[in-house]
Amino acid sequence: MASRSEWPFLVGNGMQTVWWEAGTLCLVDQRKLPHIEETVRCCTVADVADAIRTMVVRGAPAIGVTAAYGMALAAQNSEAEDRAGLLDALSQAKAVLDTTRPTAVNLRWATTRMFDLALADAAVETLPERLLTEAHRIRGEDEAMCHAIGDHGAALLAEGSRILTHCNAGGLATAGYGTALAPIKTAHSSGKRLHVLVDETRPFLQGARLTAWELKDAGIPQTLITDSMAGYFMRRGDVDCVIVGADRIVANGDVANKIGTYSLAVLANAHGIPFYVAAPTSTIDLSLATGDHIPIEHRSADEVTQLAGQQLAPDGVQAAHPAFDVTPHELVTAIITEYGVIRPPFGEQLARLRQTPAQDSPVMTDAPHAEPAEA
Amino acid sequence: MASRSEWPFLVGNGMQTVWWEAGTLCLVDQRKLPHIEETVRCCTVADVADAIRTMVVRGAPAIGVTAAYGMALAAQNSEAEDRAGLLDALSQAKAVLDTTRPTAVNLRWATTRMFDLALADAAVETLPERLLTEAHRIRGEDEAMCHAIGDHGAALLAEGSRILTHCNAGGLATAGYGTALAPIKTAHSSGKRLHVLVDETRPFLQGARLTAWELKDAGIPQTLITDSMAGYFMRRGDVDCVIVGADRIVANGDVANKIGTYSLAVLANAHGIPFYVAAPTSTIDLSLATGDHIPIEHRSADEVTQLAGQQLAPDGVQAAHPAFDVTPHELVTAIITEYGVIRPPFGEQLARLRQTPAQDSPVMTDAPHAEPAEA
Repeated sequence: MASRSEWPFLVGNGMQTVWWEAGTLCLVDQRKLPHIEETVRCCTVADVADAIRTMVVRGAPAIGVTAAYGMALAAQNSEAEDRAGLLDALSQAKAVLDTTRPTAVNLRWATTRMFDLALADAAVETLPERLLTEAHRIRGEDEAMCHAIGDHGAALLAEGSRILTHCNAGGLATAGYGTALAPIKTAHSSGKRLHVLVDETRPFLQGARLTAWELKDAGIPQTLITDSMAGYFMRRGDVDCVIVGADRIVANGDVANKIGTYSLAVLANAHGIPFYVAAPTSTIDLSLATGDHIPIEHRSADEVTQLAGQQLAPDGVQAAHPAFDVTPHELVTAIITEYGVIRPPFGEQLARLRQTPAQDSPVMTDAPHAEPAEA
Repeated sequence: MASRSEWPFLVGNGMQTVWWEAGTLCLVDQRKLPHIEETVRCCTVADVADAIRTMVVRGAPAIGVTAAYGMALAAQNSEAEDRAGLLDALSQAKAVLDTTRPTAVNLRWATTRMFDLALADAAVETLPERLLTEAHRIRGEDEAMCHAIGDHGAALLAEGSRILTHCNAGGLATAGYGTALAPIKTAHSSGKRLHVLVDETRPFLQGARLTAWELKDAGIPQTLITDSMAGYFMRRGDVDCVIVGADRIVANGDVANKIGTYSLAVLANAHGIPFYVAAPTSTIDLSLATGDHIPIEHRSADEVTQLAGQQLAPDGVQAAHPAFDVTPHELVTAIITEYGVIRPPFGEQLARLRQTPAQDSPVMTDAPHAEPAEA
């Protein structure tokens, strides 16, 4: 692996996943990490849509930030001469971006916010610039939200905690610090001794490739395991809590997240282990009553039967690839948001949090209605 | 993939995993399936030990048969001139073979049976030949036991059953027909419509490589999934039962099997899905009261961090590799043996089955004390 200084997407003690440079959107190609560091430059909405679809960029918050820049690119590239033409271009861009991946709600949250801003702004000449500023703002908010999640969640982690996580809900899944990994990073920074069990997360190996890389970079002790080992370690008493991210949290608190999360939640429940979901409020979708209505993306079977171009299974064997699953709220101990930690029943609290005008105010202070994190 | 006729280890409608040819023990190299068919020839005990340790051959019953031939090779190769010398050579061979893999009890069951035969037989000149005959007999019994398990287990599978299995407990894990796959094969042969969900079984991918290959060869409909998807499909109602093999079943019915089995059992229990273990009585170890005493093999972390020589995780990341886990008997719905299907409480029934002189009688008929399989 290259040394830290050789990776241009590492900035100071953090990293950048999605950034703007010389009029283009830059993404670190997460399909190639940890062994190859490559920047993908997106100049058009089609480039952005392709990068999201093929998982150059993944992770619900990072996809949201990327889609916001996609809307900014649409405005920048538009040759429309009037407001109607520009709005039409933005509407088309939104439609293209919204259909790239169905499960993460942050994508539509971001494109809707960008489009609503365009609708509300009559000054057509300055709109491209204003949309770019808004994308920067969404990116900045994302970082701030991650750090707030880190602060609230860190309070849940006792000295010596052994935490199991799934997929990558780290800096690479956001603009730069992470959701599920944020409490771990913050607690580690404050001097707490922690150990992380990292699910490798088949088929895409986000755990083995990305989370292991991030934790190594942050100097946080870890042990990589296959997804099938989680129950074994829970039964041995080696897991104090599970923390995962989320792609969508619906009105009753049901959570869509990377395939395998539901199995972990059932296992945690069977062993009396707290199961935490860490996510910004942009992940909340009040339009759906329960998780049964969340669209689950089904990706190519080749991603299961092949690895790095190598065929694992016999040719012609059929495989399934649901990329997400839904964890019912009954199995969720608490949700860690940028406003604080909420515990069941989730419904009313989620509704209040989502209605908070997060996008119009700094998010570094607790909303008064969110329970403060425990000490 | 090569056509069926090109695979020398396929015989008639079945396959051979372990066979004797021209004075040597032949094994199909299971590390290379399904893409490369290669026969490994073992001429010495050291060759056999190495083949077991490196997983050229795997699966508790197949390891048992292989170890029996290893004992026969030891006698064949011995230059001892008297009975004491031959027994010493066999004792050394047993010690070498017994330590190759700690979890599967069939290994020690087979070497003990071979050694006990040598101890009881005074005719030193004919002993090598008698041991080879005994190894052939163990192999033949294994095949017969698998078919008996198939007959008993098939009765548990209703028309249209959707069965989830883990690892490979098929013909490749035995002398030729399988344990967990035997009921599926037998039910399929009798005309029942079935569908198998195959856990890929990280890290060694026995499901993706071996079970998928066997089911494809047998023409049984299947869908390959990652281990992390089992809960998702159970929650959707797509799984009617789980059938797995076993590496060791102890006195109270606790079961050691491939890592990931315990997680599946917890998930099956949470969803009210029957969880069946299919294994010959040579897998029963009455010397251990509970599964807590079963030695769990920990294999190299490289088998988790690398795949086919390719590094998956960042260099230097620590990984764990417990190769087995223990499922407590409370989570086991029934155990399918060659004598019939037993249901909880298991203790007394296992004791009676293990005391049955299986090695001295054909095993095609039900022992009178085993419950007959349900219709």
